[in-house]
Amino acid sequence: MPDASQFLLPRGFRFAAAKAGLKKSGRADFALIVADVPASAAAVFTANRVTAAPLIIDKEHLRATGSRVRVAAINAGNANCAAGEAGLAAARATCAAAAQLFHCLPEEVFPSSTGVIGVPLPAEKLIAVLPALAAALGSDFDHFQQVAQAILTTDTAEKTAFARLKVPDPAISDPAIASPAIPCPSGPSKEIRIAALAKGSGMIHPQLVPHATMLVYILTDAAVEPAVLDAYLRQAIEISFNRISVDGDTSTNDTVLLLASGASGATIGPDNAEFAAALTQVCASLARQIVADGEGVTHVVELHIEGAATDADALRIAKAIAHSPLVKTAWAGADPNWGRLIAAIGYSGAQIDPNRIDIWFGSLPICRDGGRAPGFDESAAHAYIAQREFSIAIQLNQGQGSCTFWTTDLTVQYIHINADYSS
Amino acid sequence: MPDASQFLLPRGFRFAAAKAGLKKSGRADFALIVADVPASAAAVFTANRVTAAPLIIDKEHLRATGSRVRVAAINAGNANCAAGEAGLAAARATCAAAAQLFHCLPEEVFPSSTGVIGVPLPAEKLIAVLPALAAALGSDFDHFQQVAQAILTTDTAEKTAFARLKVPDPAISDPAIASPAIPCPSGPSKEIRIAALAKGSGMIHPQLVPHATMLVYILTDAAVEPAVLDAYLRQAIEISFNRISVDGDTSTNDTVLLLASGASGATIGPDNAEFAAALTQVCASLARQIVADGEGVTHVVELHIEGAATDADALRIAKAIAHSPLVKTAWAGADPNWGRLIAAIGYSGAQIDPNRIDIWFGSLPICRDGGRAPGFDESAAHAYIAQREFSIAIQLNQGQGSCTFWTTDLTVQYIHINADYSS
Repeated sequence: MPDASQFLLPRGFRFAAAKAGLKKSGRADFALIVADVPASAAAVFTANRVTAAPLIIDKEHLRATGSRVRVAAINAGNANCAAGEAGLAAARATCAAAAQLFHCLPEEVFPSSTGVIGVPLPAEKLIAVLPALAAALGSDFDHFQQVAQAILTTDTAEKTAFARLKVPDPAISDPAIASPAIPCPSGPSKEIRIAALAKGSGMIHPQLVPHATMLVYILTDAAVEPAVLDAYLRQAIEISFNRISVDGDTSTNDTVLLLASGASGATIGPDNAEFAAALTQVCASLARQIVADGEGVTHVVELHIEGAATDADALRIAKAIAHSPLVKTAWAGADPNWGRLIAAIGYSGAQIDPNRIDIWFGSLPICRDGGRAPGFDESAAHAYIAQREFSIAIQLNQGQGSCTFWTTDLTVQYIHINADYSS
Repeated sequence: MPDASQFLLPRGFRFAAAKAGLKKSGRADFALIVADVPASAAAVFTANRVTAAPLIIDKEHLRATGSRVRVAAINAGNANCAAGEAGLAAARATCAAAAQLFHCLPEEVFPSSTGVIGVPLPAEKLIAVLPALAAALGSDFDHFQQVAQAILTTDTAEKTAFARLKVPDPAISDPAIASPAIPCPSGPSKEIRIAALAKGSGMIHPQLVPHATMLVYILTDAAVEPAVLDAYLRQAIEISFNRISVDGDTSTNDTVLLLASGASGATIGPDNAEFAAALTQVCASLARQIVADGEGVTHVVELHIEGAATDADALRIAKAIAHSPLVKTAWAGADPNWGRLIAAIGYSGAQIDPNRIDIWFGSLPICRDGGRAPGFDESAAHAYIAQREFSIAIQLNQGQGSCTFWTTDLTVQYIHINADYSS
């Protein structure tokens, strides 16, 4: 009897992972996502001006193919960044070997790397396990999960998200009543599936361009033209991956790849609100999972910035707070030291009136008109932010600008993860 | 027999400190610096848009008096920030009481506060100890050091710096050969003294305007007009206090006050290179002492950014590195993970060519043309940055922009200092 989880995976893709020997732990560290036929692709990359070799290759390849991808080849344990010509050559050699195996063009291979920066990537290790990977490919849920695990580095858990939606089937319904503009949920329909996997725990402050060592792969079996797919992706990332920060360090390797196989037989054109919502929901879920699994994280904080002069100002304030070591350490200790929030708001660069700032922890009044709120209850505030997940709302009373942002505390464990050096 | 250290202190100032009961430790927390007659003053304050009550009062007072200060009244243990009208009233009440005691205008009093934000300042505690402070005033080195200790918060040591210079004495020498433009070191001269004291350990990323809970008081017995004094101060801070960061958090209370008593009898006009050099040396010494005493600091790092497109770009890169948790934790572990430096350079916003970046730890080649340097020796690099103080030089090969910047590692102890909360 087939597992119900099987019906979560978009049709037209196969998955496999193997141990290439890049991770010191000896765990699986090289994975493939293979589309049965070249998939329509959209991708966004880090805004960091230092970009890893695979990102340079990816951009070349998408241009060369008109945004079609057959194979995503992802290694963990080495970022293939700051490695000069040797890094580019290593990525190209891996693509060439994969292309030969899958009888496609090298430009149809999309390489990704995550791990330590500045150490040459031993492409020969990746190439050596490619035949075994090809032999192990499968479309079972277990195969999908193996990929989700292989791409992890300091992450403690795999990160996946899923969505399904029904679209009217114009081939078998009356186009007059079942056009994409007037969906007919009760009429004949086709199911579109979206499945996504991600890694990311440290060096997390994605600034994807239109902005990681965040790697995200989103798969759908909808049929979507690359330009349309790109528009959906950019819209979805802006309020998901571009609204999170663990440590404020923007990686050289951040990549989000969205592949559409078309295997559902259902075509998605521009401005389909349901598809956009499903994609955004998947991205937001992964973004929150990345924050929750941030290095050494013990508190996940949802910031609601309201009443800013502009949305850009709201984001400035959220980022100043999310990047303040003093705010983040106070959270680690469940210290309701709201003065540190006020200080971060003050140096954010946003237009503010210090005497009109209101702050709530959940529904608890903390700060009113820039001073201690009349109902301020320190022990209640302490108890509230002692929870693993909590929210902070800040009202600036300047205008209509707002944003929601997810971030974390800064703990002793973060320091241990990133400072413990063994030569 | 007088102590030789006595001759370090500018004439015309007296000092005292007392316990007002603001510090939980019970240590001295309220200090006065009193000029015998109203001193010429120049001051710079934090660029944070949330500014503490005393800074608002200070600006009012300097405007009202044409930049003359009789009394600097400094409390630690409470920042008097985010306290609304009550905060302003507390600062004004303290000034009024001091003015009455010293028979001066309230506007001639310059209040400063440092400590926790958002807790009402109990002015009555300060006012109650004012008479005892007035009675304890003295011009001995011991008095000066008591003030340097009383203003500390999480600092582990007082921070002081001194300079002396001789200027020709036009009153007793021939003006033709001993004008300020043509100093005559062997001729009759007067001695000008500069003494300064500072506090600052956390929330240290001063951005003084022309940019702290950094408080700095610089005293000289030169006679300098306020506008001239202001020009000297702005020039000196730009390459000292504005070039340091412990945690990237810009305080609501940062203040640098420079007072000139004139008691040496020597007048300093504009463009006196010797006075400027002495003042800059004092500021740079204090800036480095603040970094070295940063919260939880185990490594002090001097960054030399060279070959940037502009000086502003060099500063952008220095700040991106100084604020990167991943770089700072690597330093804490003496981990020569230069890839994190490359990543921070990449997201700094500065114009760079990733393939033209060179990095040295001290004189050790680390990165060349954006990749691992040919002579890279990991164990030597590790040993070098295991030292308490080390330097990193980064050559961008873009132009003539450069800066020197002082910063610190990020340690488990920093987290403990700022996260340990007792309700």
